[in-house]
Amino acid sequence: MLTEIAQNTRLAAQHLASLPAEAKNAAIELIAKSLASHADEIVAANTIDCEAAQSEITPALYARLKLDATKLKGAILGVRDVGKLADPVGQIQIYREIDTGLVLQRVSCPVGVLGVIFEARPDAVIQIASLAIKSGNGVILKGGKEAIESCTVLVKAIKAGLAQSEVSPEVIQLLTTRSETSELLQLDRYVDLIIPRGSNEFVKYVQDNTRIPVLGHADGICHLYIDSAADFDRAIAITIDSKAQYPAACNAIETLLIHQSIASQFLPLIIDRLQASGVEIRLSQIGHEILDPDDISIDLAIATDWATEYSDLILAIQIVPDLDAAITHINTYGSRHTDGIVTENISTAQVFLDRIDAANVFHNCSTRFSDGFRYGFGAEVGISTQKMPPRGPVGLEGLITYKYQLQGTGQIVATYTGENAKPFTHRDL
Amino acid sequence: MLTEIAQNTRLAAQHLASLPAEAKNAAIELIAKSLASHADEIVAANTIDCEAAQSEITPALYARLKLDATKLKGAILGVRDVGKLADPVGQIQIYREIDTGLVLQRVSCPVGVLGVIFEARPDAVIQIASLAIKSGNGVILKGGKEAIESCTVLVKAIKAGLAQSEVSPEVIQLLTTRSETSELLQLDRYVDLIIPRGSNEFVKYVQDNTRIPVLGHADGICHLYIDSAADFDRAIAITIDSKAQYPAACNAIETLLIHQSIASQFLPLIIDRLQASGVEIRLSQIGHEILDPDDISIDLAIATDWATEYSDLILAIQIVPDLDAAITHINTYGSRHTDGIVTENISTAQVFLDRIDAANVFHNCSTRFSDGFRYGFGAEVGISTQKMPPRGPVGLEGLITYKYQLQGTGQIVATYTGENAKPFTHRDL
Repeated sequence: MLTEIAQNTRLAAQHLASLPAEAKNAAIELIAKSLASHADEIVAANTIDCEAAQSEITPALYARLKLDATKLKGAILGVRDVGKLADPVGQIQIYREIDTGLVLQRVSCPVGVLGVIFEARPDAVIQIASLAIKSGNGVILKGGKEAIESCTVLVKAIKAGLAQSEVSPEVIQLLTTRSETSELLQLDRYVDLIIPRGSNEFVKYVQDNTRIPVLGHADGICHLYIDSAADFDRAIAITIDSKAQYPAACNAIETLLIHQSIASQFLPLIIDRLQASGVEIRLSQIGHEILDPDDISIDLAIATDWATEYSDLILAIQIVPDLDAAITHINTYGSRHTDGIVTENISTAQVFLDRIDAANVFHNCSTRFSDGFRYGFGAEVGISTQKMPPRGPVGLEGLITYKYQLQGTGQIVATYTGENAKPFTHRDL
Repeated sequence: MLTEIAQNTRLAAQHLASLPAEAKNAAIELIAKSLASHADEIVAANTIDCEAAQSEITPALYARLKLDATKLKGAILGVRDVGKLADPVGQIQIYREIDTGLVLQRVSCPVGVLGVIFEARPDAVIQIASLAIKSGNGVILKGGKEAIESCTVLVKAIKAGLAQSEVSPEVIQLLTTRSETSELLQLDRYVDLIIPRGSNEFVKYVQDNTRIPVLGHADGICHLYIDSAADFDRAIAITIDSKAQYPAACNAIETLLIHQSIASQFLPLIIDRLQASGVEIRLSQIGHEILDPDDISIDLAIATDWATEYSDLILAIQIVPDLDAAITHINTYGSRHTDGIVTENISTAQVFLDRIDAANVFHNCSTRFSDGFRYGFGAEVGISTQKMPPRGPVGLEGLITYKYQLQGTGQIVATYTGENAKPFTHRDL
């Protein structure tokens, strides 16, 4: 059954792949219009999801699940923004003469069919669908079960928009049961890329259970390191923003590292400001020893805290003897997502930028900037914590591959091998 | 044990990653010198391997195993060529102002540690080692067991060269037992990319048994399609070159497709020429019906022939009713490696180039051009038959990743969100 769905998606995607930019952009505009005209139905479906889930999920997850009229309006604007992006398909990346009359081109093309497994976050449907169509790919979606009503109505609205366009509504499919997820992972003949979004454990589960390439959008265990040469005002503002501005985001920090030489001054200040922002603190033993013994209301951080993504108003704090120790802590416990340093010392910052093994490494700014929109990519399908490209915020570029096309006039390799081998010209055109 | 080896490689690779181009190029030159001065020892070790394997492997595999003085000289030239390539590390791919005083850079960096599992083909050690060092990566090698003596002496010579350089000899390691291979696949904490070279089954086995990203260099089931508008002289020359010039190569063809409208003329001609080149033919039933009944010395192709990589002087031939049927045959049985068309009809060629789902799609030239050297990449670590980049011949580019570095002056995300959100400038610098 799912095999048949995937085959249909593949056929529809092959047709989509051949469409010019205008046809794809027209389809995206029709999606935007259809979402706007289905707004009441979408918000009503989301209300059902939210009411059912309210008592069972954390406030952070609830914030992601909620899709009210304002958030929907923003998401529809996002769809139109994707329409305005340059067509990533058909770009000539290499154009090279190999020899006279023998010309190599590397041309960008869609990946084919994407399988996207995401959290209970309905706005992800809108963003992923518009990015998939712009990049010429079919997409099979599976959202978190708490968002099932919202996702169903959203996909219905998107298909209604596509029905009026040159793009077949079959390019987008929604799966609704967990058993379909494991089935999806086996369809390596029909699905070209799996994009799992969720916990590190979930991404690892997917990697262990499929031979389809995986673009892992795992949770972020992000760090901010306050160096001995930090400007305190900047350090405080950046810490509060990185933790409390939207704690459910994957680019919010979970651990604050403080250089020991400034800890006795900085620690009381930052604890005060964090607590005023409603942040619960888990402080290491060394930190407790630095503080006045009266401040025993602060929890002691234990070993598991350094490897936990709270996704909530909770922050672990560690004191480190030097830059090396900060880098080692981050490269040990971090999830290679986003890590920042606050320092006025440029050479310290450069060592940090070079040696931290993460997709995004920041100096003197909030970790919350780690995002496709903020980077100017127009939209993002996720933030990849993998080492191989696409790494970091992934926009259209990550949904595109390429092929080599070589056009000749009868050339054979025998001419270019052996004793009297003709040399290649290798001249970029 | 292997964990310890991998940790050491990782540490050595971190140091290598920080070295400037000059230091890496000096190390590569020292490798070339050391290989040249160990030439007798290398050739002697290879002779032992070849004598032991001769009666047990096909002539095609024997040709890959053999490393005589001439082939070694060529491989050493290849090492020096890698030294001359531009440094792929530290290239700024994106340089963008996000807002005043907030600058984003995307900088290329090494992947870390590569695990390369390859065939009994000793010259691969030389090519992979030089590419790994140039790209700033450590590498753990495991070659086919028939090449164990050759690989051992080659790695010894490479380490001797590195010992005189700034690069630690620990960046390159050789595994010699099969049990180490499965252990290697579990080391996702220390190994960043697995490059398996071999049969499709072997690449699938690796994909099924590791969560480390895999750059699959699988066998090629490559096709050549002779269209109704083909120039016969070109078609014959390209067919012979694509099959017989070096049949053990992954880019040699396994199946020849012929348009039915020219089959009665072309088939006898090409069979004659192929047989003169020593090629054994497996012809489909339709083909047999077209031929004169006297030609019964030709084998009948059976279903499995269309999915077999012979890697030898054997060619399957099928007759197809039209271009669509040719494309469907190739997209069904091909391994997405390299497929070509011979036609004088430009629009037919364009449809073929667009619709064939392969890393390399060719028009009027031999499939044997599918190769990193011939494309002008300097060298290749393999040819990826995956859909996602790096696809096709993979040179240095495939061994490189990138990170995003954002440098600010105290910026926080709160400034850019909500009612009075400050807009981003997103200006490329």
